[in-house]
Amino acid sequence: MISSEPIVNSVTWVNSLALALQPPLLATTEAENAPIILTGVLLSLVVIYLASKIGGELSRMIDLPPVLGELVGGVLVGASALHLVVFPDSGAVASDSLIMTILQFINHLSPDAVTSIFQSQSEAISILAELGVIILLFEIGLESDLKELQKVGYQATIVACVGVAVPFAAGTAGLILLFHAPVIPAIFAGAALTATSIGITSKVLSEIGHLKSREGQIIVGAAVIDDILGIIVLAVVASLAKTGEVDIFNVIYLIVSATVFLIGSILLGKYFNQGFVSIANKLQTRGNLVIPAFIFAFFMAFLGNAIHLEAILGAFAAGLVLDETDKRKELDEQVKPIADIFVPIFFITVGAKVDLGVLNPVIPENREGLIIATFLIVVAIIGKIVTGWSVFGQPGINRLAVGVGMIPRGEVGLVFAGIGAASGTLDKPLQAAIIIMVILTTFLAPPLLRLAFKQSIEPQEPIEPADLLS
Amino acid sequence: MISSEPIVNSVTWVNSLALALQPPLLATTEAENAPIILTGVLLSLVVIYLASKIGGELSRMIDLPPVLGELVGGVLVGASALHLVVFPDSGAVASDSLIMTILQFINHLSPDAVTSIFQSQSEAISILAELGVIILLFEIGLESDLKELQKVGYQATIVACVGVAVPFAAGTAGLILLFHAPVIPAIFAGAALTATSIGITSKVLSEIGHLKSREGQIIVGAAVIDDILGIIVLAVVASLAKTGEVDIFNVIYLIVSATVFLIGSILLGKYFNQGFVSIANKLQTRGNLVIPAFIFAFFMAFLGNAIHLEAILGAFAAGLVLDETDKRKELDEQVKPIADIFVPIFFITVGAKVDLGVLNPVIPENREGLIIATFLIVVAIIGKIVTGWSVFGQPGINRLAVGVGMIPRGEVGLVFAGIGAASGTLDKPLQAAIIIMVILTTFLAPPLLRLAFKQSIEPQEPIEPADLLS
Repeated sequence: MISSEPIVNSVTWVNSLALALQPPLLATTEAENAPIILTGVLLSLVVIYLASKIGGELSRMIDLPPVLGELVGGVLVGASALHLVVFPDSGAVASDSLIMTILQFINHLSPDAVTSIFQSQSEAISILAELGVIILLFEIGLESDLKELQKVGYQATIVACVGVAVPFAAGTAGLILLFHAPVIPAIFAGAALTATSIGITSKVLSEIGHLKSREGQIIVGAAVIDDILGIIVLAVVASLAKTGEVDIFNVIYLIVSATVFLIGSILLGKYFNQGFVSIANKLQTRGNLVIPAFIFAFFMAFLGNAIHLEAILGAFAAGLVLDETDKRKELDEQVKPIADIFVPIFFITVGAKVDLGVLNPVIPENREGLIIATFLIVVAIIGKIVTGWSVFGQPGINRLAVGVGMIPRGEVGLVFAGIGAASGTLDKPLQAAIIIMVILTTFLAPPLLRLAFKQSIEPQEPIEPADLLS
Repeated sequence: MISSEPIVNSVTWVNSLALALQPPLLATTEAENAPIILTGVLLSLVVIYLASKIGGELSRMIDLPPVLGELVGGVLVGASALHLVVFPDSGAVASDSLIMTILQFINHLSPDAVTSIFQSQSEAISILAELGVIILLFEIGLESDLKELQKVGYQATIVACVGVAVPFAAGTAGLILLFHAPVIPAIFAGAALTATSIGITSKVLSEIGHLKSREGQIIVGAAVIDDILGIIVLAVVASLAKTGEVDIFNVIYLIVSATVFLIGSILLGKYFNQGFVSIANKLQTRGNLVIPAFIFAFFMAFLGNAIHLEAILGAFAAGLVLDETDKRKELDEQVKPIADIFVPIFFITVGAKVDLGVLNPVIPENREGLIIATFLIVVAIIGKIVTGWSVFGQPGINRLAVGVGMIPRGEVGLVFAGIGAASGTLDKPLQAAIIIMVILTTFLAPPLLRLAFKQSIEPQEPIEPADLLS
């Protein structure tokens, strides 16, 4: 429900505006819906971009990552507060949507027409958000450097595996055993705890001057690897959620096919790359680089979906492959504005679909949801701190710092929440709990990481001559 | 209907692929549609981008503008030939769509599910195409220089007005009087004859070395002005089509409101610009320039739709306003890849929606459609050639060259065809006739223009020192 006060005001205002703008002899009762759906999509996009920019900038001002502000902006314009961006698949009807109320008053629509326009408009925004997460993962793939990754080696791989296994196992087991949650949602929520945010972690490390330290190198390497593991886990878990049952052969099939798909595309990609570059060089019309890249990314995303994994796994693989071409830098630059336009639609939508009201502590029925949220946050933090003790053969290393550096979750955690919500696997309290887990781990990581490095015996970062020259 | 031969082959292939890819114990009968809609959108986008790039490149190779190849590519993948990209609003059902056939065999869908997925997928592609034309007009606005326009002055304005009035009046009157067409579609088709393509005209002029000649300057100036006039005409005509009746007060209201909207936004834009630049300079997160620009463009497009004109009028006004800022060059560069991704969806969709079969001369019922198409093409050519004789006070000017230079239609003509088809105003033969008119005028203009300039007494272009320095 929307609080009545601001609605009444805006309704009056919108109504008089509509009357003022009405052309003299226009018969608007015979509604043709197509242009009105477009009007709704345009207005939703304006709201989404405003929320993402205001949230992102405010977040940056108080020294937090912009994605956090975008998420909070999404929560504010969504089902929890302003009701500007709401979706029928989270149980909203047309009259819950402030944008639909505005359209209704501009166009004098019948209730039936409003319901059908609301449905079509929400579907269009959802598809744009899904294209947004596909482009986001394509860009993350483009930015992950496979060669750098091979250098970091075993240490980072072990930290990553432990950091995926512990929170996943503890989260899933705890939800089933302590809270009697059904198996599939428990696995989904456990899996959402796995992936460390590369962006947030490396930004904080560089701010406190530890990015090039031994600890920093292990943390960043492990964050890249657990992103990849997290995306494979998501592909497997989301596929399980579609069938609704956990079958051991199916799980093995999915893990094998996801791994084969990812590694196979990277190996085949080496041959593909030469063809791609020579095609892009021959093309002379506009979009000669970006269109072939998107044909490849969307085709891989289609393949990922078609073999019952996830579209984002395909887009990520496409990014990893194209990252190895000579065109990388040029492509990065051209993909950036496209991602800037699409990705905020995804983040705002994830925030907007969450109804924080389900965790309002004043209402007694919400107690269990709150306890589950607290449990997930504790598992998310402890499950990553222990990874520091899996480092071997590195005497004097700050194990606590390594573990704390792995805490912040980010984009991939939100991808879990978004896909879980869209598929109906996660109920509202679990979905809200995951969002709060992402927000809190990101808030806590910077101060905790500063504390952890203060305990270190060697706080100075060794400055390499190569860094000074670069 | 699709020809049966290739379908059978692809069905067999898709079927065995689907069996091979099927996970061992996956229950696919309980269809969850959302990921399948996304799969369909991704596959459609791959087809659209392939058609646009192959068409555009082949067209460029034989020295024609790429947009022509994209249009032909759209015709090939659409309702006229391959049936890959078809739409329910042009009368197609799910089984007509080859992409739906592929999805059905991958996912073992029920006929009901396929129909609903086809509907949602087509709506999503249509919205993406509409965002494409909005972004196209935003970019055209960004590229039109108001200051340059003021220099060209009265000559170009008169040529533009004559070049809009003559084809519009002759086309509309001819369709009503000779072919007894209903008033609204006749006005719509007449209006589609108005706008000269800036891009095609200026490219041909520069190739034959006449861009800076007196004739060239008048042609380019008039092409810019008649684009603006064409967009105003479109806003008025499309609004008439929505109400279904021509009322003189309504027409006056629409012309006044479209003109006031466009001129008002340009005048107010001067104040807005300073605020826009200072905001963009203060923002420090990603998309600091492109997101505020798109908030403005989409908001103006929303306003255009909300006051019962057209979204593209608002987007065009937004482009004209932002063109005057210091950020222009940076913004141009960032909008380019976004337009590269969105605009082809529009051009391919316009081509795909046309059913050239309605003009097949073998079928006797098509005769009238063919005669109408021929009539429109003749009016389109003669209506522009006469503009050369409206030039005054310029002794010795090559009047034929000025007129011939105004012949090629392009993007704005296609926008008319696209919007006319989407609103159901244009019937299939008229729609196909407009597309063929755009294709033929563009094909004919380059050779005709070369011929017209050969008759000229002064074929050499005066080289100004400023050009050599720039």
